[in-house]
Amino acid sequence: MKKIMNQVQDMVRESCEGFAQAHADIVALNAEPLFIYRRDMPVQVALISGGGSGHEPLHAGFVGRGMLAAACPGEVFTSPVPDQMLAATRQVTGAAGALYIVKNYTGDVMNFELAAELAAAEGLTVQSVVIGDDVAVQDSTWTAGRRGVGGTVFLEKLAGAAAEQGASLEGVRGVAERVMAGVRSMGLALTGATVPAAGQPNFTLQDNELELGIGIHGEPGRARVPMLSAADMAAGLLDPVVADLDLKRGEEVLVLTNGMGGTPLLELYLAHREVRRLLDAQGVKVARQLVGNYVTSLEMQGLSVSVLRASADDLKLWDAPVHTAALRWGA
Amino acid sequence: MKKIMNQVQDMVRESCEGFAQAHADIVALNAEPLFIYRRDMPVQVALISGGGSGHEPLHAGFVGRGMLAAACPGEVFTSPVPDQMLAATRQVTGAAGALYIVKNYTGDVMNFELAAELAAAEGLTVQSVVIGDDVAVQDSTWTAGRRGVGGTVFLEKLAGAAAEQGASLEGVRGVAERVMAGVRSMGLALTGATVPAAGQPNFTLQDNELELGIGIHGEPGRARVPMLSAADMAAGLLDPVVADLDLKRGEEVLVLTNGMGGTPLLELYLAHREVRRLLDAQGVKVARQLVGNYVTSLEMQGLSVSVLRASADDLKLWDAPVHTAALRWGA
Repeated sequence: MKKIMNQVQDMVRESCEGFAQAHADIVALNAEPLFIYRRDMPVQVALISGGGSGHEPLHAGFVGRGMLAAACPGEVFTSPVPDQMLAATRQVTGAAGALYIVKNYTGDVMNFELAAELAAAEGLTVQSVVIGDDVAVQDSTWTAGRRGVGGTVFLEKLAGAAAEQGASLEGVRGVAERVMAGVRSMGLALTGATVPAAGQPNFTLQDNELELGIGIHGEPGRARVPMLSAADMAAGLLDPVVADLDLKRGEEVLVLTNGMGGTPLLELYLAHREVRRLLDAQGVKVARQLVGNYVTSLEMQGLSVSVLRASADDLKLWDAPVHTAALRWGA
Repeated sequence: MKKIMNQVQDMVRESCEGFAQAHADIVALNAEPLFIYRRDMPVQVALISGGGSGHEPLHAGFVGRGMLAAACPGEVFTSPVPDQMLAATRQVTGAAGALYIVKNYTGDVMNFELAAELAAAEGLTVQSVVIGDDVAVQDSTWTAGRRGVGGTVFLEKLAGAAAEQGASLEGVRGVAERVMAGVRSMGLALTGATVPAAGQPNFTLQDNELELGIGIHGEPGRARVPMLSAADMAAGLLDPVVADLDLKRGEEVLVLTNGMGGTPLLELYLAHREVRRLLDAQGVKVARQLVGNYVTSLEMQGLSVSVLRASADDLKLWDAPVHTAALRWGA
């Protein structure tokens, strides 16, 4: 195992320290318990998320104006604990209340639930949404039901824009639920990834195969298949997504072509070309798009595609100003 | 070799097509000869760069308001040809003239020189600068003199801001020369990378070693050494940079902690913490910073550090609005 790190047990903390130094104009770091929060938090609904580390820039990279109020990083591929979420909630929640954005993994769901109860006991108003956008598998090693993956970026951006515009907690939650109903994702891996504490790759693929339907922790997918062309990769990811969304000719979508962390942009933009070609051929209109490594799995090579059926309101929320480490425009 | 691609010979073109689709609000693609150019080019000095592909987002990711007017991508790790540069020059050059920004590699230098002569013969005003900021080695496989690496981002940003503000060709060139005089870089690799046309890694490192002083094409560096802690990696990169710049206590710098393409952000931010810690200890003030995969070598894991001795004028040019695929603020 070769990682840029000092001691395994210090990796997440030290990385968060570097992140907070690099983006000190946007975020601040709370060291104990560990969370990242927005420096200039105004009076509005506070979006709070978190999850295991190793998926950067998710979630800390989305803390800032127009997206999250706080993010709680767990150890690598391990849920943060309720103490982190509770402390973050105290830090950023005002009279407008807070919305927890939880990716559907058993540990995350349980710990955010517990934190919500503790926060409520202190008189804080907290609601939660749980996203499960991965069409690859129904249940998996880490999850009952669908896993939360790339669609989380759309959820955090659109709900964050609604909060920034002064929507109520019910209003922000309504946007979040609309996104969850309209987004689907699927991913594939060309390589595994090594969790620092394990020291060994979480799985190994031969030089002529890929794993289709992989999760962001390297959970098994639908099938291990011989290596595919970029065109066939795009079809293998998009077809189940389009079918599950029941997308029709003429509909508008927001697309994320997402790298798994170790995927170079040269390859990712090529994949995006194939995604666009397939959607064009089906008469689906790509109204907005995002290409990059946004919801990752350490150094894994591979990609995922997320598609959101987007209304005019959704596009306005997407276009609204955002100022975070990983997404920035109009602000 | 596992790459997200169709046919090797179509890889660069198809990736550029996906890039131009994803960023159609900023850039347009000229298919033959291949170059990417700024859609809304105003009357000002046109900065034109280019080089082998595989270093994305460099250079196409820096085309747009406040940076480059055009970028010419060659095949992977292969110089673009003079026809590309000449056609790009015709497309974006007005009465204010053009400045070629050339990384110091033998093929790039030769081809940009030839393009400048051809452009001059057509009555276009073109000047060139050649950047060599890598302190690792004096000469290497691909270069006589120092290699052009991460410092190119600072050069393109600061000179681009000057051009956007209406500086003359001599003025923009002056900024470029000031940056080149004040920036130094050094990199290290944890893994090699595979050029698609070769199909094999350009070099192989054992599980307990890294290559210090590596170039962005996998050219050999200063030494192959046993694996280091992040703290020692940062010192191994920074010490030669600081010594070569003769940085003194109290001076202000702009720092780029740059991933080589396959480096996850978890590790890169941790490296940045170490870079900051060392500079802080030396009393050098980090006035601005950038952390991410910006000047890459395909899927190589590793990092480089670039340091620019920055005047107040340099910081103003850094802060000036920029709207490109890879850097965006204030616009």
